[in-house]
Amino acid sequence: MDRGMNQNSGEMYVRRVKIAGMGRALADKKICFGNQKRYRLSQGQTLLDLAQRAGEQALQAAGMDIRDIDCLVCGMGTPLQAIPCNAALVHERIAKGLSIPAVDINTTCTSFISAVDIMSCLVEIGRYQRVLILSGDTASAALNPNQKESYELFSDGAAACVLVKASEKEASSILYSSQRTWSEGAHDTEIRGGGGLEPAFDLREENREDYYFDMKGTRILKLCARKLPGFVEEALAKTGVSREEIHLVIPHQASRALDLIMPRLGFSKGTYADYVSEYGNMVSASVPFVMGKVIDEGRVHRGDLLMLMGTAAGLTTNLMFLRF
Amino acid sequence: MDRGMNQNSGEMYVRRVKIAGMGRALADKKICFGNQKRYRLSQGQTLLDLAQRAGEQALQAAGMDIRDIDCLVCGMGTPLQAIPCNAALVHERIAKGLSIPAVDINTTCTSFISAVDIMSCLVEIGRYQRVLILSGDTASAALNPNQKESYELFSDGAAACVLVKASEKEASSILYSSQRTWSEGAHDTEIRGGGGLEPAFDLREENREDYYFDMKGTRILKLCARKLPGFVEEALAKTGVSREEIHLVIPHQASRALDLIMPRLGFSKGTYADYVSEYGNMVSASVPFVMGKVIDEGRVHRGDLLMLMGTAAGLTTNLMFLRF
Repeated sequence: MDRGMNQNSGEMYVRRVKIAGMGRALADKKICFGNQKRYRLSQGQTLLDLAQRAGEQALQAAGMDIRDIDCLVCGMGTPLQAIPCNAALVHERIAKGLSIPAVDINTTCTSFISAVDIMSCLVEIGRYQRVLILSGDTASAALNPNQKESYELFSDGAAACVLVKASEKEASSILYSSQRTWSEGAHDTEIRGGGGLEPAFDLREENREDYYFDMKGTRILKLCARKLPGFVEEALAKTGVSREEIHLVIPHQASRALDLIMPRLGFSKGTYADYVSEYGNMVSASVPFVMGKVIDEGRVHRGDLLMLMGTAAGLTTNLMFLRF
Repeated sequence: MDRGMNQNSGEMYVRRVKIAGMGRALADKKICFGNQKRYRLSQGQTLLDLAQRAGEQALQAAGMDIRDIDCLVCGMGTPLQAIPCNAALVHERIAKGLSIPAVDINTTCTSFISAVDIMSCLVEIGRYQRVLILSGDTASAALNPNQKESYELFSDGAAACVLVKASEKEASSILYSSQRTWSEGAHDTEIRGGGGLEPAFDLREENREDYYFDMKGTRILKLCARKLPGFVEEALAKTGVSREEIHLVIPHQASRALDLIMPRLGFSKGTYADYVSEYGNMVSASVPFVMGKVIDEGRVHRGDLLMLMGTAAGLTTNLMFLRF
């Protein structure tokens, strides 16, 4: 067991919250790599267009108006601009003229789970009542044509949800949420350039690769193989939840290695949502996009127990038991 | 009163939390513009060096070791890299080998107040027990030599605090916290380039200005003059706190206009901490840096009521009543 692993009994803190509505939006340009479908922003389209569409759809599904929302959170993995935060730019699209607070919560690919984890605590105690969480990234802005593995993996998309307090009569809740970061993997998934450490101004032909997304697939897989089984077993043991009770696992659509990893975690084909061939890895949008999709398709109903999980650059892992 | 302003009664939710220790670090290179002292990273120095120093100092002041911490939060306003999040990179410096979760919370200049606001709720309910919050930005990475107003304003620095649950006997608490975002100011303070909307690869001589920090000082001042008085009055009215009860106001060290703004908010010279001449604007580090300084200098003691406040790109405003 990892050092520090037992420190956090707060993972078991139950929050009586509900996903009141979800929305999602896909980039317009469809491309295929063999049987793998991917979506990229078309000329003139930006992630803000997708976030706006996903956000408005989530509000509509929740039967709400933006005026009902008292906090707007972007759980996104990459900045739209260096300043201001993404949530302020999304605010401009969907909440201009209102004073709803806007804040970013970022753990890269698992930002959505982290944002739900964190904000559910604030909803539970009433710090906020109705939170709109938006995820999505412009993966296509930094893909390296020379790194086939990642170049052919990602899609641009956005997804959103409205998080509210559940009523006494509703079963909806978060039973458990856990996050861990193992920074020995901090450089296994990265875009080194573009931030304060290696500003845009330093871009030269010689260091061009630093500004591209860089994924060391084999290293990540090895670290995941070492860390994930214990992380999952601990969640099951602490909560007493059995794999059979889980209606559906919604993993981050990290890569086609999903079919290698999930069985090693004790989840056989069909017990987890796998849309890698259909959409690829949508960075922070992957988990909420797939979640919204399985709900809309009727694969998930109110009261069903879901397990959201994923790995992110960091290396960060998140796991959440959510009764929808 | 702004639309939506009354929605959030959760601002009054009292959290019995305590700042157990603080730390701060200044960049090595000192420069002066007239009587204004500024600090910038020296050759080879990075914000991670400063964050590490500030974090270690905060832990020491709290009498803790990094192993005592169960969540590491970067409340920073700008990315160090596009991926992973800043907290994962700081984790690598001070928590490598441990599995402490790392997450970024970002509202630009007021990120520290937002991070304390949000994480105090998680500490209050026990989701986490001891949170290390680090702030700081590499302002010097994007300053425009042609925009004197901002070029001569900023310093590079970092600051950190350890946030824990207060015991029954302690007076330490957060009495009130409020955040608002008015996105009509979304483009008054920005770095348009470097993120997903205008990637580093698109930098040309013609759009070079887009990658620099850009501040529309007069517009910001006008928006602040319109929004801040009501924001402050509302906090005082809701809590029943009088200006006289506030031991010290710790404002974001936004600019030399502090001496214009604060009196208009009813705070006369001497009732608020003003270190603009000494350090300038340190983006997200400003509030915690100044807070750590006044504590170390004996200007603030346990039990004193502080008002933290600031404006950030967004335009976002934060206000917090914190009994130290």
